[in-house]
Amino acid sequence: MTPTALDELVAAVTEVLRDVPARTAARTDRSGWGPDGVPDAVVRAHGVADVVAAMRWAHAHRVPVVARGSGSGLAGGASAGPGQVVLDLSAMDRIVEIRAEDAVAVVEPGVIAGDLDRAARAHGLRYAPDPGSVDLATIGGTIATNAGGLRCVKYGVTRDAVLALDVVLADGSLLRTGAGTLKGVTGYDLTSLVVGSEGTLGVVVGATLRLVPLPVATATIAASFTDVESAAAAATAITAAGVRPSTLELLDRATLAAVDAAQGTDLGAHGAALLLVQTDGFAAAAEADAVVAVLTPTAAHLEVTADPERTATLVAARRLALPSIERHGQVLIEDVAVPRSALAAAVRGIEQIAARTGVRVFTLAHAGDGNLHPVVLTDDGVVTPRVQDTVDAIVALALALGGTLTGEHGVGVLKRPWLDDELGPVARDVQARIKHAFDPHGLLNPGKAI
Amino acid sequence: MTPTALDELVAAVTEVLRDVPARTAARTDRSGWGPDGVPDAVVRAHGVADVVAAMRWAHAHRVPVVARGSGSGLAGGASAGPGQVVLDLSAMDRIVEIRAEDAVAVVEPGVIAGDLDRAARAHGLRYAPDPGSVDLATIGGTIATNAGGLRCVKYGVTRDAVLALDVVLADGSLLRTGAGTLKGVTGYDLTSLVVGSEGTLGVVVGATLRLVPLPVATATIAASFTDVESAAAAATAITAAGVRPSTLELLDRATLAAVDAAQGTDLGAHGAALLLVQTDGFAAAAEADAVVAVLTPTAAHLEVTADPERTATLVAARRLALPSIERHGQVLIEDVAVPRSALAAAVRGIEQIAARTGVRVFTLAHAGDGNLHPVVLTDDGVVTPRVQDTVDAIVALALALGGTLTGEHGVGVLKRPWLDDELGPVARDVQARIKHAFDPHGLLNPGKAI
Repeated sequence: MTPTALDELVAAVTEVLRDVPARTAARTDRSGWGPDGVPDAVVRAHGVADVVAAMRWAHAHRVPVVARGSGSGLAGGASAGPGQVVLDLSAMDRIVEIRAEDAVAVVEPGVIAGDLDRAARAHGLRYAPDPGSVDLATIGGTIATNAGGLRCVKYGVTRDAVLALDVVLADGSLLRTGAGTLKGVTGYDLTSLVVGSEGTLGVVVGATLRLVPLPVATATIAASFTDVESAAAAATAITAAGVRPSTLELLDRATLAAVDAAQGTDLGAHGAALLLVQTDGFAAAAEADAVVAVLTPTAAHLEVTADPERTATLVAARRLALPSIERHGQVLIEDVAVPRSALAAAVRGIEQIAARTGVRVFTLAHAGDGNLHPVVLTDDGVVTPRVQDTVDAIVALALALGGTLTGEHGVGVLKRPWLDDELGPVARDVQARIKHAFDPHGLLNPGKAI
Repeated sequence: MTPTALDELVAAVTEVLRDVPARTAARTDRSGWGPDGVPDAVVRAHGVADVVAAMRWAHAHRVPVVARGSGSGLAGGASAGPGQVVLDLSAMDRIVEIRAEDAVAVVEPGVIAGDLDRAARAHGLRYAPDPGSVDLATIGGTIATNAGGLRCVKYGVTRDAVLALDVVLADGSLLRTGAGTLKGVTGYDLTSLVVGSEGTLGVVVGATLRLVPLPVATATIAASFTDVESAAAAATAITAAGVRPSTLELLDRATLAAVDAAQGTDLGAHGAALLLVQTDGFAAAAEADAVVAVLTPTAAHLEVTADPERTATLVAARRLALPSIERHGQVLIEDVAVPRSALAAAVRGIEQIAARTGVRVFTLAHAGDGNLHPVVLTDDGVVTPRVQDTVDAIVALALALGGTLTGEHGVGVLKRPWLDDELGPVARDVQARIKHAFDPHGLLNPGKAI
């Protein structure tokens, strides 16, 4: 990139950061992965016009651009290096409007997901997607990865919450997808295509999002089991009973120990695996009764509560599981998904892999979705061959069980080596053709996702 | 198309129909719209191999192919004419498996949607999408149009029910989309892209579908209102109260009169508009109570029932609304959607359009989704200028209210004239580029959808 080109960029947009600390901060995400060196510049977008100007400039000069929110991604999807410019959207953080009657919010991409949820509460509504990073992640980033979370077992993933998008394309043109209505079938579903595309098809500069009513009641159940198979079978039995839990999480023995040590709880005292179940809405109590009926025959210990304080403790135990585990050292956070019926086989298989490699693995799972997060302890931050072997074996196990290599975190850079194993040549080819249709010069987040 | 080419086709696949009645039957769908003349041949596919062979043949000879299920479409999407070959998938009607533990069905495209729903019932499950044509429409056709129905206000549209697809592409290669897991973000969402693409991107030859538990209970409420505004406002108030109804339908005065005349009911006796509301699941009774509380202040008449016979009568009144209206003559079935808050304005606007043009319009609406079906009476089957004026004005009204020109029936041929009004040039261009990426020679259902 020539100094003249960079000067043109500085003239075209509101704010360009060229100091080394800013460029270094934009090199990686929460995965820690990044290329050698740092990006050439960081554009802090202050509005759609900045994004349009930056992409026109990048298109004219054929400069690769990496869009970025708060950098909470776990797959290296927002990493950037020399020869690339980072487009930082975190300052575009306005909640433009909340239309309560339509249960719709219109937001800029830099809004923090948790902030939107809190703003919706004032209208008796909520924004359902709640990834673990909900208080860090921007809406743009959650759209890029199609983020999930604890509530999506009932309320759906980010894709289900996005009604329409404003997207700046590789040449700087502005695409409006969707109709802002709850239903619509005019043309191809460009909204769903852009959601989960990890910044490779366009830069999301605005989103119309579906909100849902705040539940009138919530019930919480913590059930302990002597082994993981019983817990997984119980999770399947809950959904088979027609219950639609709003949370259905599984924590294995290693995770429970880490949580108890960090948070002073005693969740591991009653068994080797825990199911955390929540029901909400008008049926919260009735569904909780049904859950208890399902769990009683096989649970070693059962606790039901509607007490807000105890509920908060139990939910925090799950939400703080990852930081609790991280007290043991730097980790790799895996993200595989399997058919729900294969959940027990997956958890047991992960235990066997850990036993074989000698690497510590803590498994927590969105059990209702069959989405597992095995958290793999590195050797003091180093991905040694046995750590890599562990991760490889976990992904291979998921695929062998009919699963997928990423349930909700995205492919980014870190999952690309396995893409061929899951997709096969025809799908790879179609993905590449779609990418080319949107971005013929390969400017948007090159080397990521596909 | 040369006789030699047709002979090659006959040699390549199991069954080709070349008689005029078969070709005439494949010319149009339920809309009645079709080009002059009939397609050159109809391939009756008996398996994936037939579809692959037919597409390889079509690709080699550059022959346009129109995939077809049962022809229940309403937008001319499956119409075909001279120089084209129809690929009839209705004989591929096997339910391959129902995996109850995963709540998943694997089916061929010719399975009738209602048949899958009935088969799922044996496992305590249901297939949620239920378009009006549920007992005619094939799964392949409902995937092509992203069909909705009465239940999608709670359970989602067809796209929400499709986990994975097998798709034969324009060159005969076989694409597998999705992962068969409940969550997955590996690569672009090709599943959602193919759903709703109206046969223009590929031919669906297999689908992995999500099933949902049969509800443990259902409650039904019929509420009459003195005017349409009150009914629409009540519909909005129901969802604002946090209720997730499984049915939320609005019928206007003209529709009620037609239904009462045809079915011997007296639904029009209590008001000028009716809301038909159902709640289901563990909260059926509690949500019904909440609905009654919301409706009582404004409803002119209120009936709540859990009696199966009375429920069946009320549901039939809605489900048979269209045939009841059709007793008055041939109709055009419109399908616009607006933001939920604009529902009353849309219904009132349609009444005003009908008053101006003198054309009779019967409006029924999936009120919970803001999806309206104004049913426009033709002049003895002829779309006269005033009928066309009525339809044009209805679509323009929907767009002016921030809506879309098709909520669930698809663009087909009939809605193409308005595409530019809704999508604009950038979106049109992106749609065309995606089409070209999948089908560079334009062989798949040309002239439809985009």
